[in-house]
Amino acid sequence: MIIVMEENATDDQIVAVVDRLVQLGFDIHRSTGARYTILGAVGSRLADLRALELLEGVNKVVRVSSPYKLAARAFRPEGTRIQVQDLTIGQGCCVVMAGPGTIESRAQLESIAEALASRKVRVLTGNVTRISSDPFGFQGLGEEGLRILREVADAHGMATLSEISDASQLPLFERYVDLIRVGGRQMKNFALLKELSRQSKPVILTRGESSTIEETLISADYLMCGGNHQVIVCESGIRTFETYTRLTLDLAAPAVVGKLSHLPIVADPSQACGRRDKVSSLARAALAAGVDGLLLEVHHDPDRALCDGAQSLSIAQFHSLMDRLERIAAAVEKAL
Amino acid sequence: MIIVMEENATDDQIVAVVDRLVQLGFDIHRSTGARYTILGAVGSRLADLRALELLEGVNKVVRVSSPYKLAARAFRPEGTRIQVQDLTIGQGCCVVMAGPGTIESRAQLESIAEALASRKVRVLTGNVTRISSDPFGFQGLGEEGLRILREVADAHGMATLSEISDASQLPLFERYVDLIRVGGRQMKNFALLKELSRQSKPVILTRGESSTIEETLISADYLMCGGNHQVIVCESGIRTFETYTRLTLDLAAPAVVGKLSHLPIVADPSQACGRRDKVSSLARAALAAGVDGLLLEVHHDPDRALCDGAQSLSIAQFHSLMDRLERIAAAVEKAL
Amino acid sequence: MIIVMEENATDDQIVAVVDRLVQLGFDIHRSTGARYTILGAVGSRLADLRALELLEGVNKVVRVSSPYKLAARAFRPEGTRIQVQDLTIGQGCCVVMAGPGTIESRAQLESIAEALASRKVRVLTGNVTRISSDPFGFQGLGEEGLRILREVADAHGMATLSEISDASQLPLFERYVDLIRVGGRQMKNFALLKELSRQSKPVILTRGESSTIEETLISADYLMCGGNHQVIVCESGIRTFETYTRLTLDLAAPAVVGKLSHLPIVADPSQACGRRDKVSSLARAALAAGVDGLLLEVHHDPDRALCDGAQSLSIAQFHSLMDRLERIAAAVEKAL
Amino acid sequence: MIIVMEENATDDQIVAVVDRLVQLGFDIHRSTGARYTILGAVGSRLADLRALELLEGVNKVVRVSSPYKLAARAFRPEGTRIQVQDLTIGQGCCVVMAGPGTIESRAQLESIAEALASRKVRVLTGNVTRISSDPFGFQGLGEEGLRILREVADAHGMATLSEISDASQLPLFERYVDLIRVGGRQMKNFALLKELSRQSKPVILTRGESSTIEETLISADYLMCGGNHQVIVCESGIRTFETYTRLTLDLAAPAVVGKLSHLPIVADPSQACGRRDKVSSLARAALAAGVDGLLLEVHHDPDRALCDGAQSLSIAQFHSLMDRLERIAAAVEKAL
Repeated sequence: MIIVMEENATDDQIVAVVDRLVQLGFDIHRSTGARYTILGAVGSRLADLRALELLEGVNKVVRVSSPYKLAARAFRPEGTRIQVQDLTIGQGCCVVMAGPGTIESRAQLESIAEALASRKVRVLTGNVTRISSDPFGFQGLGEEGLRILREVADAHGMATLSEISDASQLPLFERYVDLIRVGGRQMKNFALLKELSRQSKPVILTRGESSTIEETLISADYLMCGGNHQVIVCESGIRTFETYTRLTLDLAAPAVVGKLSHLPIVADPSQACGRRDKVSSLARAALAAGVDGLLLEVHHDPDRALCDGAQSLSIAQFHSLMDRLERIAAAVEKAL
Repeated sequence: MIIVMEENATDDQIVAVVDRLVQLGFDIHRSTGARYTILGAVGSRLADLRALELLEGVNKVVRVSSPYKLAARAFRPEGTRIQVQDLTIGQGCCVVMAGPGTIESRAQLESIAEALASRKVRVLTGNVTRISSDPFGFQGLGEEGLRILREVADAHGMATLSEISDASQLPLFERYVDLIRVGGRQMKNFALLKELSRQSKPVILTRGESSTIEETLISADYLMCGGNHQVIVCESGIRTFETYTRLTLDLAAPAVVGKLSHLPIVADPSQACGRRDKVSSLARAALAAGVDGLLLEVHHDPDRALCDGAQSLSIAQFHSLMDRLERIAAAVEKAL
Repeated sequence: MIIVMEENATDDQIVAVVDRLVQLGFDIHRSTGARYTILGAVGSRLADLRALELLEGVNKVVRVSSPYKLAARAFRPEGTRIQVQDLTIGQGCCVVMAGPGTIESRAQLESIAEALASRKVRVLTGNVTRISSDPFGFQGLGEEGLRILREVADAHGMATLSEISDASQLPLFERYVDLIRVGGRQMKNFALLKELSRQSKPVILTRGESSTIEETLISADYLMCGGNHQVIVCESGIRTFETYTRLTLDLAAPAVVGKLSHLPIVADPSQACGRRDKVSSLARAALAAGVDGLLLEVHHDPDRALCDGAQSLSIAQFHSLMDRLERIAAAVEKAL
Repeated sequence: MIIVMEENATDDQIVAVVDRLVQLGFDIHRSTGARYTILGAVGSRLADLRALELLEGVNKVVRVSSPYKLAARAFRPEGTRIQVQDLTIGQGCCVVMAGPGTIESRAQLESIAEALASRKVRVLTGNVTRISSDPFGFQGLGEEGLRILREVADAHGMATLSEISDASQLPLFERYVDLIRVGGRQMKNFALLKELSRQSKPVILTRGESSTIEETLISADYLMCGGNHQVIVCESGIRTFETYTRLTLDLAAPAVVGKLSHLPIVADPSQACGRRDKVSSLARAALAAGVDGLLLEVHHDPDRALCDGAQSLSIAQFHSLMDRLERIAAAVEKAL
């Protein structure tokens, strides 16, 4: 941590800041320049930078060390690969994970899974608790939904992925789900992250819609602090002034996360744009930008979906997108 | 709901849209203009506007009715007053609610409460679960903290206010807390809101940092759907490109909420700016803008606070602020 | 325009609104529903929606017609092609336009142009007025720069593109420049747009960093109102809370602009990310998302560039990117 | 400037960075810690931080010195007072500056000025070039408008304030206008700022709608670099996700600008909210927050204003607001 004093800071002020830092357990290196005094502070604790900035005579406080450690590239320079069944995520391929937004029935999921399996999709997705602003609408199938997900996936040799909405669901998720997703709204639910850091399934951490990449990696660190290092970052769009699409997919994220962190990164174009007619171009762009996976909402009858039909691809649209993704994957040398 | 068709929509397209709406249970009124055909759709269900906009030939879909009902001004034109003990919120006064960000010990809370009581503050605040990005820092006192809050408040004839972080805490909150706060990060945690709608304590609903006022009122509606209409809206800042302060307090919110809704609105300048040296001017501004209450973080030794000391007023700063608020309250004819 | 009255609007209020609309020259269609009265207003003038919303008893005012006309897809459903010399933009190809951020000298531009020409780049770009926050830094070569641009481009059979910073530069631009770019900061400089609408060169209109796509198309309309319909939209990033990159490139924009408008759209990944190490993945993504062109900043010695070197590709990086773009272009069936 | 190297940076990388900095003219102080090497660089030139961050082995580059100098508090710790006729801005008072958004006619301005003068408003405002997205609407009176402004103001002993839209208008503004306003859209029009820095009238610099306070002060620096130090900062709202109001007035800005800079700050609630029914509460809040002045749009017949009527107070609303402001001014000990 570096504390830059004001140009006109008095010696008393400087001494007071040094005292405060020593109290907080930091070792101090004082460097007196022609115009500024700069204090370097080294220690193991996280200090509240804002509190230090309020001390008299302080101009600016700058964190030198990264605010995340376990998620940082330096922690594992060669990169992390996540193993799900016989599938590897984070390794020269782009894993397609697809399914309905919310599981409605066994028949629904079977129709969809069949189409997905025909294109060699290896991860079947589907949520079972609906997070909706309508208190009287469809609320999801709960455990029954997870059981259906598991059985349909098994029938096709697929892994399962579902979004957890509450720590109390964890035992169920451990039984039925291979990849546990944390939604963007929960990205800073640190109590949930802590619970998840102690179990052994890989976790997909979705960037919150008004969060930065750094904040996302801080949450990833939290998720890893209990020993589970199987974390995948998911870019699913950030809120901007643009309203035509639900959110704006940040396609610099794959390259930025790849530089700052060793974790794989996947993209969710369906959630990002919220409109099925824009999913295809975003999915192609994400693949070309270098993501390690794509999450796609697919529905066999989107106009009659109980929820989020607007952002679900029809089976025909899914096939057409897969054709295009296959050509791009070959061009960018990623296995699909 | 109004569906505006494209200028060049074909009759087949129009008929298909009408059919779809009828299927969804809407009554339709078709109005054919010189350039556009416009469909009016009346029904009781919420439709997914985005899904309708994707139908062929549709240009735009506009919701006519308000997306919230119970929270709307029309539901109770005379305005809502919340009763807490013998205190009324939402009625020509500005209720100051103050205390430490997080309760650290009985001694701490007693020191602070004494100073507050000397200025006739009637609501004592303090959190017991710390929501922090540091997995190894102070995590709050939990139930012990609530018990301290209750006892210290009772000793001074004050009501209690604390932030709930999880539905599982509800029984404890019902026992110890008079005003239950929902933090901004939980504003769209609909499962929690639904739980809270079924209990009887008043709830302070904090606007999320990237939420609009309309979205806040939709959450308020959710909170009221179980029968508890004792809801207070809290403006505690929204995220903007400005980084000097943590968030930007939206001081048009009191007037806007007052027009759109019958619910009282309070402001939290401490959380909004995150720096104690800017709290005073925002608190004064909020009072002049017409809020029904102010939430203030106060600490007897902010430099040694276990958390969020940077945004806590010292006792001396609190007294000085109260002096200034008293003068402004008189000028704007609000009882403090 | 549709005016939705409040549920409890009185008849006097409705009549007053009708009178006001008639005064403003609108024809009115009144539709009295069970709960709401809705007024349809048809007329040729643009009305101030906010002013109408302030009338007593009005709940909401909704514009039915598009706020832009000439730029709307309906105006030219088959799409617009822009002709520059023998080059066509907006027609199954992705035109690469490249050069230094700012022209520094003839030698500089010649070095760069040679590399570009070797990859069949057909449009040479370079600015001559530097827009910088440093009042004492390099300010650009002005007319001398335009002359160099023209001559170097001619030597390689390339077209020229430069950004105009002021209407007074127009005569110079008409002499030397084939494609006139309007920067994002000038997107709402309506006086400049009006001047440009009266000349005959094609214009590249850059979306402002906090503008929506709709606002961009409104500016495009302005640019076309004088008769020059040769307009290209440029997505060059929007401001978000993310700070690692300068801006966030919105790669839903190609699909959205393609639906709403007949105008071609190009992307500028260099300006969007502001860091050369992220330009390549964004450029690939933009191509896969379907843009009609790419603007790339390339410098023969970026570490010694007088400005914006950080976002300029080196010659080697440019070649490597072109290799990758060529493969993706083949996969998405676009001529590069 | 401080350059923090990566933990695993090699010595060759460190030497390369040092060499680059020396080349750029910096003096270097190298500090080798247990984990990081940190380089302090002192020099007179502005370096491109992003370019340095791209060097191999660099983790982070932090600017130590303020990016603005002349506008910084340290430059004139006692604060700046601006003299306009016999009026002082920035000195324990809150100067009300009011008038129509755009001057429409002499009769209009006289009606309004009379009402303003009756409340001792000392600065008459009015624009003469309309910046509008409607190419066919009213465009402002130009020089004729400035002449009317001057004459009507003189008749009431008022000073004049108008917004300049182009450097070419400067001679006219020097003749007729006492306070020249730069609008938010022009805040980064550095060419215009440079022109204005060479003339002698005080300038009101409006913060851009997506600009930070720091960026505003950088523009203020630009405005002062030619010798004119008579600059007033104007907070007129920043763009946020909230859409009910046009922009969100940042009322931490008075306290923040007061700490960072010696320049006076005024607020423009009319432009910020864009709706006359919300202007009053924002104006009161701004006064309580400590602004040195208020800009108010007032119209004798807002429903018939040629433009921006929605955000203009009627004469009756203006009187009512002044009554309330007078009481608050007394409470906060500011002369109105």
